[in-house]
Amino acid sequence: MPEITIASRIRTSPFYDATLDAGVASFTVYNHMFMPSGYGDPEAEYRRLTEGVALWDVAVERQVEIAGPDAAALSQFVSARDLTGLRVGRARYAPMCDHDGRLVSDPVVLRVDDDRYWFSLADSDVLMWVRALAGLRGDDVEVSEPDVSPLAIQGPLANDLASDLFGRELIDSLGFFHHARVDLDGIPMVICRSGWSKQGGFELFLTDGSRGVELWDRVMDAGAAYGIGPGAPNSQERIESGLLSFGSDHDADTDPLEAGLGAYTSLEAGIDFCGKTALIDRTRRGTRRPIVNVTIDGEFEPTTRPWVALVDGDAVGELRSAVWSPRLDAWIGLAQLATPHHEPGSTIAARTESGVDVHATVTDEPFGTIRTH
Amino acid sequence: MPEITIASRIRTSPFYDATLDAGVASFTVYNHMFMPSGYGDPEAEYRRLTEGVALWDVAVERQVEIAGPDAAALSQFVSARDLTGLRVGRARYAPMCDHDGRLVSDPVVLRVDDDRYWFSLADSDVLMWVRALAGLRGDDVEVSEPDVSPLAIQGPLANDLASDLFGRELIDSLGFFHHARVDLDGIPMVICRSGWSKQGGFELFLTDGSRGVELWDRVMDAGAAYGIGPGAPNSQERIESGLLSFGSDHDADTDPLEAGLGAYTSLEAGIDFCGKTALIDRTRRGTRRPIVNVTIDGEFEPTTRPWVALVDGDAVGELRSAVWSPRLDAWIGLAQLATPHHEPGSTIAARTESGVDVHATVTDEPFGTIRTH
Repeated sequence: MPEITIASRIRTSPFYDATLDAGVASFTVYNHMFMPSGYGDPEAEYRRLTEGVALWDVAVERQVEIAGPDAAALSQFVSARDLTGLRVGRARYAPMCDHDGRLVSDPVVLRVDDDRYWFSLADSDVLMWVRALAGLRGDDVEVSEPDVSPLAIQGPLANDLASDLFGRELIDSLGFFHHARVDLDGIPMVICRSGWSKQGGFELFLTDGSRGVELWDRVMDAGAAYGIGPGAPNSQERIESGLLSFGSDHDADTDPLEAGLGAYTSLEAGIDFCGKTALIDRTRRGTRRPIVNVTIDGEFEPTTRPWVALVDGDAVGELRSAVWSPRLDAWIGLAQLATPHHEPGSTIAARTESGVDVHATVTDEPFGTIRTH
Repeated sequence: MPEITIASRIRTSPFYDATLDAGVASFTVYNHMFMPSGYGDPEAEYRRLTEGVALWDVAVERQVEIAGPDAAALSQFVSARDLTGLRVGRARYAPMCDHDGRLVSDPVVLRVDDDRYWFSLADSDVLMWVRALAGLRGDDVEVSEPDVSPLAIQGPLANDLASDLFGRELIDSLGFFHHARVDLDGIPMVICRSGWSKQGGFELFLTDGSRGVELWDRVMDAGAAYGIGPGAPNSQERIESGLLSFGSDHDADTDPLEAGLGAYTSLEAGIDFCGKTALIDRTRRGTRRPIVNVTIDGEFEPTTRPWVALVDGDAVGELRSAVWSPRLDAWIGLAQLATPHHEPGSTIAARTESGVDVHATVTDEPFGTIRTH
């Protein structure tokens, strides 16, 4: 693989120096920031995530904070999901759409105070998008990127580790997508039971970027008893688990229904939000190019870019991701396919970037259930 | 340097395979796309750019196209520079600001037809920002990212090479920031006398992404007579030449006046544009943290991240970039400093990421003139 250029245009995370010390081998870029993508031992990293506990620098999940008298109104306008009843200390997964119904992000929104919301972002410049809407609407709000940097602990042992760090009482009281302000030896943060895996765990939203390495070290020390080690959002596990990767799994004209997020899109609710009319129109016309799970036959390398999906030589979409699944002992992936080629049992052909011909079959059931919250 | 992860979330350019064949050694990410940042021989790459001709894959300069009956009105609203009189076949450098006057991009805008404008972007999601504005304003436009991928030839011999490729008559008629639709053996493009260096040259806006490698090879073949070789936007040359690097040289709350772009900001013109009121307010309050040129003393490595700039131990800004200048035979850089520490002759202290103490002095004159168009 080529090197990555480290320079000022792309920001470093508060945990950056700790990840270098931990032996980070590769980075990607996400929200104009470097994110560790591997530490040189993918098998150990997968095993820690699925059997133990892993520590991820996910400071790239930047927050857009909407605060002020109109915070609730604007937060609802930018969310395609009904936020009615979202209490302080709770979070919801809420797709965002533009005026034409295209997905612009799929954040988790945390209500951190009565008049303060954090949108924990995927990889797009939602900050300037929300500011444009607030500016023209004339909302009485401050829209900012606060000093908040998530550090995730993920894996079946994350609950025990968090109990050691924050006390069992707090952790037991914290349901899925519940959050609370806490500190650890004076290091301030919001802890939320959440994270981009289905292995359980927490995101520690550090609220003082000057203390990143201190927090990393503190968690690493406490995690030693559980065999903790560094890791990163994991393609194998997230595809096994059916979690959407915004920007990876679809093209730029995809709506939340095509992305399998219908359950998190409130078309029937008596609320107004950006893109609602367009989404209703899209629904009436029928889903065009849904994202589906596929199994793949052949001898090949994981995708580094989308492969054209062919049926009888005609392009019908793209095979966007292909990874080896240790759990399913098979090559699995995600494809975005024009209807009716998305139907279970349909097969597509594709050629990999190194010229290998493969065949993929749409599965009867998704590998995981899309986020069940 | 760590490796870069190549995966579907980040797009490859139409020239990607050609850059791999040419031996690309490092990438950065720009507009959710991989951009070559070096081919392993920085001295040769600098020399080709300043003495010969270099070929750059700058497909990451994505275009936002605004087309339709309200294209002129919306294009003016998103541009802090007066676009009155911009004819088809001409371009202008036009900063974009949000409602609070913050720079959101510094594109070059090409008028490609009466009712069609291309904004050739820096690294931010202007597409969704413009769509948000168009959606709420109700403009009768299509806002899209067209199939357009710039390939740049830059350097003092670029003019001769372009003349060989496209004919001397066309090239001689093409003034700075003039553009024309042409083809090369049937490969369609818009050629513009422009590019992110002060060495002269052209950007070939390829309008058929399936023909990227073909175009690259064609230009490489014709350029052999001039010693052409692959390269990339060059930090040394652009700092010597005083070209702004959006996102590198400043923080996220910087306005075009602080960025030295006052000459491209039309506060006096009888036009309305996004952020105009806020910019006038900022002007009345006085520039707060201008970007200035500095020379730097010490023995150190180039910046990989901003260094805190200190005066008597107090933070007064950041030294954002530091590079060795072959032309000036000195370490030079860019700093964003709170007034009055930006005054010529002011000195700041900084500590590099490897712990070396350096001193920098604000220069009397900028190294180059900020884009003179």
